[in-house]
Amino acid sequence: MFQNIGIFGKYTGNQCWDNIEVLTDFLLSKSRTVYLDKPSCEKFPRHEQAPLLERDDLLEKIDLAIMVGGDGTFLDVARNIADYDIPILGINLGRLGFLTDISPDDMINTMEEVLSGVYQEERRNVLKVSVYEDGKLMFEERAINDVVIHKTDSPRMIEFETFVDGRFLNSQRSDGMIISTPTGSTAYALSAGGPILDPNLDAISLVSINPHTMSTRPYVISGDSEVELRAHEYCDKTAQIICDGQITHDISPMHQTIVKRNPHYLRLLHPKGHDHFELLRAKLHWGDKLS
Amino acid sequence: MFQNIGIFGKYTGNQCWDNIEVLTDFLLSKSRTVYLDKPSCEKFPRHEQAPLLERDDLLEKIDLAIMVGGDGTFLDVARNIADYDIPILGINLGRLGFLTDISPDDMINTMEEVLSGVYQEERRNVLKVSVYEDGKLMFEERAINDVVIHKTDSPRMIEFETFVDGRFLNSQRSDGMIISTPTGSTAYALSAGGPILDPNLDAISLVSINPHTMSTRPYVISGDSEVELRAHEYCDKTAQIICDGQITHDISPMHQTIVKRNPHYLRLLHPKGHDHFELLRAKLHWGDKLS
Amino acid sequence: MFQNIGIFGKYTGNQCWDNIEVLTDFLLSKSRTVYLDKPSCEKFPRHEQAPLLERDDLLEKIDLAIMVGGDGTFLDVARNIADYDIPILGINLGRLGFLTDISPDDMINTMEEVLSGVYQEERRNVLKVSVYEDGKLMFEERAINDVVIHKTDSPRMIEFETFVDGRFLNSQRSDGMIISTPTGSTAYALSAGGPILDPNLDAISLVSINPHTMSTRPYVISGDSEVELRAHEYCDKTAQIICDGQITHDISPMHQTIVKRNPHYLRLLHPKGHDHFELLRAKLHWGDKLS
Amino acid sequence: MFQNIGIFGKYTGNQCWDNIEVLTDFLLSKSRTVYLDKPSCEKFPRHEQAPLLERDDLLEKIDLAIMVGGDGTFLDVARNIADYDIPILGINLGRLGFLTDISPDDMINTMEEVLSGVYQEERRNVLKVSVYEDGKLMFEERAINDVVIHKTDSPRMIEFETFVDGRFLNSQRSDGMIISTPTGSTAYALSAGGPILDPNLDAISLVSINPHTMSTRPYVISGDSEVELRAHEYCDKTAQIICDGQITHDISPMHQTIVKRNPHYLRLLHPKGHDHFELLRAKLHWGDKLS
Repeated sequence: MFQNIGIFGKYTGNQCWDNIEVLTDFLLSKSRTVYLDKPSCEKFPRHEQAPLLERDDLLEKIDLAIMVGGDGTFLDVARNIADYDIPILGINLGRLGFLTDISPDDMINTMEEVLSGVYQEERRNVLKVSVYEDGKLMFEERAINDVVIHKTDSPRMIEFETFVDGRFLNSQRSDGMIISTPTGSTAYALSAGGPILDPNLDAISLVSINPHTMSTRPYVISGDSEVELRAHEYCDKTAQIICDGQITHDISPMHQTIVKRNPHYLRLLHPKGHDHFELLRAKLHWGDKLS
Repeated sequence: MFQNIGIFGKYTGNQCWDNIEVLTDFLLSKSRTVYLDKPSCEKFPRHEQAPLLERDDLLEKIDLAIMVGGDGTFLDVARNIADYDIPILGINLGRLGFLTDISPDDMINTMEEVLSGVYQEERRNVLKVSVYEDGKLMFEERAINDVVIHKTDSPRMIEFETFVDGRFLNSQRSDGMIISTPTGSTAYALSAGGPILDPNLDAISLVSINPHTMSTRPYVISGDSEVELRAHEYCDKTAQIICDGQITHDISPMHQTIVKRNPHYLRLLHPKGHDHFELLRAKLHWGDKLS
Repeated sequence: MFQNIGIFGKYTGNQCWDNIEVLTDFLLSKSRTVYLDKPSCEKFPRHEQAPLLERDDLLEKIDLAIMVGGDGTFLDVARNIADYDIPILGINLGRLGFLTDISPDDMINTMEEVLSGVYQEERRNVLKVSVYEDGKLMFEERAINDVVIHKTDSPRMIEFETFVDGRFLNSQRSDGMIISTPTGSTAYALSAGGPILDPNLDAISLVSINPHTMSTRPYVISGDSEVELRAHEYCDKTAQIICDGQITHDISPMHQTIVKRNPHYLRLLHPKGHDHFELLRAKLHWGDKLS
Repeated sequence: MFQNIGIFGKYTGNQCWDNIEVLTDFLLSKSRTVYLDKPSCEKFPRHEQAPLLERDDLLEKIDLAIMVGGDGTFLDVARNIADYDIPILGINLGRLGFLTDISPDDMINTMEEVLSGVYQEERRNVLKVSVYEDGKLMFEERAINDVVIHKTDSPRMIEFETFVDGRFLNSQRSDGMIISTPTGSTAYALSAGGPILDPNLDAISLVSINPHTMSTRPYVISGDSEVELRAHEYCDKTAQIICDGQITHDISPMHQTIVKRNPHYLRLLHPKGHDHFELLRAKLHWGDKLS
């Protein structure tokens, strides 16, 4: 089970090389082949038996990805591996995250179980955004959490139209709109007042950011739906597309932006007994059982 | 197409008997058999060829229901016919409704088309709520819009636990919680800050009413899910279950309340060319296409 | 400083008589005269030198009130003493409250300081609600947190008009509306989506509960303003007035309900160095200083 | 009454020169001296008796300002005249605005009354923002609606601390925060979920934009208060200050940003019988009187 394993670290901030060293040693002791992701682990002090590989090479070799870091870095790695059908699990270095839900203390026990086939696998929707100009693809990216249309530097609101499956939904004046997966519904979409979507729900949430019209509300559509955005002509150079709050691409009224479910899902591994509701209660300070 | 047709009116308020008369005459002229619903049309002044029937008898005979009234009365009739698989269409007497979306002016034209087989049929989720005491069913009802747990007369909040598919979600102190279908997402759930669910989305929305915990947010789950509610022991005689804002049933801590999708759907007929997004834009003052 | 001191306990739940005993002994040792409030301390096991008095008698004698309990009981006592200009301080028995902000551990130290004149006094707005029928006063009460107009047992919304200083503001269909002091802005009004008002702000907040109109928003007016509510004629026997979630009074369309600032303020004592912002951060999990 | 009158037009979009011509002719016929604002009326086709003046010169001469345009242009002019104590009235060219509340049809009748001393004058709070670096003033501006701290082009949230009257309120991670006057409470602050403040209320509203912490709520403080903002050290070159959505200024962690009430108020003239509540009901689709 899981013979070739890739380890990914945090890009910035304090790395916890100790955790990666302990993890590597453990995996090697279990006769696994271990590779370290070069972009995130280049400064790792020891790696004789765990060679650094460029990410593209790495992804061709591994059948399991372990991310040691926070939810932010996890998103970046997850976008990269989304189309490889490689399962991923996340070890947090600080606070418990929605995606990095294994603590360093439980790391070895959890890995022991995972290597023996004891774990839960969850399939999460991923979004794909494509920007076209005159029918030609100009930009394409995946998003684990959300694709956002947002004003750029300008203090003015932007205006754009939204279509769902080719049908006109509405036009709006706002700071932007978040198109969110269930995974992203506990991230930026939550700050903007969106609902929380159950990870099992095959749905996409459209959450406007500071809309001018007071009756605008989050709108939840089927995960099969295709969303199209068209910026108004006066929004030239004032609108951008943002993936997971990390990748940005400027758009103009000439562009057609299409957002839909990526053909490949994210394969997320959890320890046996993982309970998403428990995670929600812990992270959101929700009420526990009544005594 | 549609040989035996039942007509339902408004229970209270100003009936528009003229519309029902025009409609009846038209249907009879098309060689259809027409029955009038006794509870809602008893005072209708003429009905020689369109006999009044008790509702139970009526529902055994008809293959199409036409509701002439508003969304409120529609809900009541729709709950009644939900398990008969009879399609229904709604003619509004006042303002355009989400359910009664045919105006009196378009009534005859629309019916002409419907009788010739030109229409759109939409399947909407219906909820079923069951209240058990010691495993014994004490109350059962359907809901087109929503099942609500709510405090009764008391000014104090209630406290209860929510389970989804047998798993504990959370406990909360609040005025109550709305369990809503996509249809109900534009009704009471919207007033309470819930998201709008696309009618095509197979989902259930949980929207807390004035929750004490500030991080409580609407939670959207799969339409396949089963929701269970358990009132806290100190909430004796202070909690009730409400269906569509019309049917109430008091519950106590000893009760187990189960809400899930009704096995039968509501079959909603619309005129050809019906556009739900257009209805949303009109009712919610959303922005039209940009010029 | 503060020669005659009244002690108030919790009406229900687990009393912490120990705290009251320690407090009484301390005050007696400082040569103060101590009285116990009969309604809340009747079961207190010892009180030779601290006699039980009926509340009306008590309030004529004391120049300081100490409430040992939670925010709920505090509200009840505070409404009672509001018109006596007696300062009050609150010792919490469980979690830190917005009103009972002294912990049992700090109780003696704080009292030592208070008796020597070291404390902060804060003046809080109190509301007075008066219900008239044909110009005759039918009901009058004070509220520390809020006066609420709310539907009673009925599942249907109520409809009513609001006037501010005699000018028509709006009509609304909703579950009700909260008229809140700054003190109440962190209580029920917060659950209903209202803003937090600084305790120093002389203002009244109007927060609708689940309003039918989507553009309804909390409205904040001057503390000098007079609010009048008139229930719609069809809301007979379905509307009530609630003070602090504790006192209720049914109203009908024939009634005129007036809410305005009470002529007397609540005099709230805090330990020296009390910081309301610190309390907000602690209670609402707001962010601390950046490092 | 009002001898020297300045007329201001719209900067961009379709001017309605006809209205300005009719207005000018009327004022001249009433023996008033009329000046046209050069920046906004340069292209006005006739002005023999109504000379164009540079704005600074104009403001020295006039005792009444008339703005013919929309709320957007009104804000710009109002910021400019705020410190001159010149009263202003606004004629809308399109839809009724909160600030431009006189329609072209009522323009002459209203002016007839205003010139004869029949009008209502309302005093509105104005904000002043000052940005300091090492105690040195780097930027100063007024705002009629709001001063906003906002992220710039970056997709990441910013982090900053807020102090009120020198006391630490909280730190937050968000897209920014709106510091709003009562006038601005129906503008951007409303889109971000803020409460509506009565124009008579001497208050400032702090409304966070997509805050990361779910218990963040709008906070309303006294109009006498001074607000200070300090960006976190990692927010270098990612935060800006925006006045009325029109003027921007980049800030860094080294800057100290102070927002407080401007010493001069905006003097806003309305026609006799003006009713702010009526304007709110019309603009926000609130309910009218019950029949």
